[in-house]
Amino acid sequence: MSSVDRAERRARVILSKVCEPGDPDGCRLVRQHSAVELLERLTLGKAWSGKSKVAEWSERASAVDYSALMVTADAVGARYLCPGDAGWPEGLDDLERMVESADRRGGVPFGLWVRGDADLAPSVRTAVAIVGSRASTAYGDRVAGDLAFDCGSKGFTVVSGGAYGIDAAAHRGALARERCTVAVLAGGIDRLYPAGNSELLRSIARTGLIVSEAAPGCAPSRSRFLVRNRLIAALTRGTVVVEAALRSGSLNTARWARDLGRGVMGVPGPVTSCSSAGVHELLRQPEALLVTDALEVVEHLSDSGEGLAPRKEGPIGARDALDVQTRLVLDAVPIASPAAAASIAVVAGVSRDAAVRRLVDLHTAGLVLRSEQGWVVAGPS
Amino acid sequence: MSSVDRAERRARVILSKVCEPGDPDGCRLVRQHSAVELLERLTLGKAWSGKSKVAEWSERASAVDYSALMVTADAVGARYLCPGDAGWPEGLDDLERMVESADRRGGVPFGLWVRGDADLAPSVRTAVAIVGSRASTAYGDRVAGDLAFDCGSKGFTVVSGGAYGIDAAAHRGALARERCTVAVLAGGIDRLYPAGNSELLRSIARTGLIVSEAAPGCAPSRSRFLVRNRLIAALTRGTVVVEAALRSGSLNTARWARDLGRGVMGVPGPVTSCSSAGVHELLRQPEALLVTDALEVVEHLSDSGEGLAPRKEGPIGARDALDVQTRLVLDAVPIASPAAAASIAVVAGVSRDAAVRRLVDLHTAGLVLRSEQGWVVAGPS
Repeated sequence: MSSVDRAERRARVILSKVCEPGDPDGCRLVRQHSAVELLERLTLGKAWSGKSKVAEWSERASAVDYSALMVTADAVGARYLCPGDAGWPEGLDDLERMVESADRRGGVPFGLWVRGDADLAPSVRTAVAIVGSRASTAYGDRVAGDLAFDCGSKGFTVVSGGAYGIDAAAHRGALARERCTVAVLAGGIDRLYPAGNSELLRSIARTGLIVSEAAPGCAPSRSRFLVRNRLIAALTRGTVVVEAALRSGSLNTARWARDLGRGVMGVPGPVTSCSSAGVHELLRQPEALLVTDALEVVEHLSDSGEGLAPRKEGPIGARDALDVQTRLVLDAVPIASPAAAASIAVVAGVSRDAAVRRLVDLHTAGLVLRSEQGWVVAGPS
Repeated sequence: MSSVDRAERRARVILSKVCEPGDPDGCRLVRQHSAVELLERLTLGKAWSGKSKVAEWSERASAVDYSALMVTADAVGARYLCPGDAGWPEGLDDLERMVESADRRGGVPFGLWVRGDADLAPSVRTAVAIVGSRASTAYGDRVAGDLAFDCGSKGFTVVSGGAYGIDAAAHRGALARERCTVAVLAGGIDRLYPAGNSELLRSIARTGLIVSEAAPGCAPSRSRFLVRNRLIAALTRGTVVVEAALRSGSLNTARWARDLGRGVMGVPGPVTSCSSAGVHELLRQPEALLVTDALEVVEHLSDSGEGLAPRKEGPIGARDALDVQTRLVLDAVPIASPAAAASIAVVAGVSRDAAVRRLVDLHTAGLVLRSEQGWVVAGPS
């Protein structure tokens, strides 16, 4: 899609106040025709369909004060970004092909209200969504914060929803790493919701970005949260869910990520914790990958061969330094009560002479003990 | 395989003391010829290969006191079970087709020493392995115990390795449910190893079974634990790992289960716990399924359509009882600051009249609040 002209941009600004975000009819009409044409028809009362929704739109369209909208946006340092603008993230265009369902509205947004100095597209070129429960536990907050901090260290921008709990912990982790973080809100970018996060959201706006599809002044509602989630998924290479109760909204973000072909990840927790039950349900689906740290997240979201997480192997012990035959002999030494070298040789499948030589080496290394009854493994059993 | 005759059974008893459990040469020679023939050759010093192992076997074979072995077994109420016997579990024959590798010996055991009154085959017809770390946490012990208890309630026999930690918790959970539980040991069935679990193992022998491939008197060693693990996997429909550090032996059991085409499951825990790190690594493999309770275990191990776990859905709220249009209106009501009915109607995509009717219903149900400024969602936000 090419950059939009001034009239089209103006029409999209107005429509962002008129149509419900992600409304399938709104998205379809703007795509098939243009925002200018849709707005013109609405203003003239000539709609494409007889739906009551369109009558409402007409009424609202005539009431929108374009200048007031732009003044409000300007007052908080926000601008309106349209598809095709230099700062427009290409990932959002993937929403074009999303199937619209009754539950989940979709479509490419008319545009995005963006608050903050950073450029959106480069900021989210390498980005990961970290989302989760508002009612998080100390464990979840810690994991989300660490994950965001470490993803930041790996050059990833953390995108989340600015909510209490996991979202806030993720934003804070990214801020602590002094990395750009992006909060995608369900209401207007001038309404720092929830109020208890307003200070955090102001910090995000200073060094990162606050983004919303809804016009300034719009209030958050459940349906707006659900359509907002598609933007979090579409702006990122993948979504990590850290703590989610069953039916948590963050699982909706994970479903958007799956349907968009993005990575779907979850951080497990105790099975005794309701706050992890939704994540565990997610991780039982074949498309979801269990992750325990940022290395595994980065590996999953990197092009093949890049950013591979080192395979976890546990501590390297003295045993690992041994040659194969010595290790076979050590493995054959009893753990509980001593055995003779001949018996150990049989267990190990080596000759008795070889076993004796290896046992002496192992004794020198302090790995086996010798008594009158024979040989036994040394150390804590 | 048909039941073995008396001479063959006697030869297998002796070989269980001569050959290392799971030794690939031993398994192959007995399969290709017979235990009688192998023992005869060993006694006459005529071996098939020039390996030093065979020379050792010859020496040991001439030293085995068959009667003493049987007396020892009898003293603890144990018997020797051979492939083809009525009590022989068919699942063990699947080990025939296992690829032998340097790391993991395989093959069908010559036979099994079985201690306890129960019949082995019917006991493990519906069985699950619950295994894990010896260095378990209180969380892991609790989860393993609950899982074993609940699997017992669903008619599953719990098979484990009799070790400290998760194994012990699993056996105890099954015993608490008064279900048969089977401990597969790496050493002889007369040696209740580890000593700290001897009371538990005696309880298991009273109501369930203690099983080992190694002859009475044999000591446990690392290599014997590894070959023992194949029996735990082969005796069950699937293996659940509850807490395992990286490189834990229980992950070896899970690999045997995978290679045998059995179910592979893991119970997650906090990513901050080293005791769960091995389980998480396992759950990142495509063949492993995350499980959080016995219903999910039973579902995974049941024939298709049987034992389906109910899909976890979280608490059903007042919202769920609403019709679709009322729910759409409720979802459109702002969470933070009130909105007019007309604005809510647009968000919900319904007519203003319909919205007002639904809002009044929602108000009566206590789900929304009305003020001079408009409507807002009621209750904790």
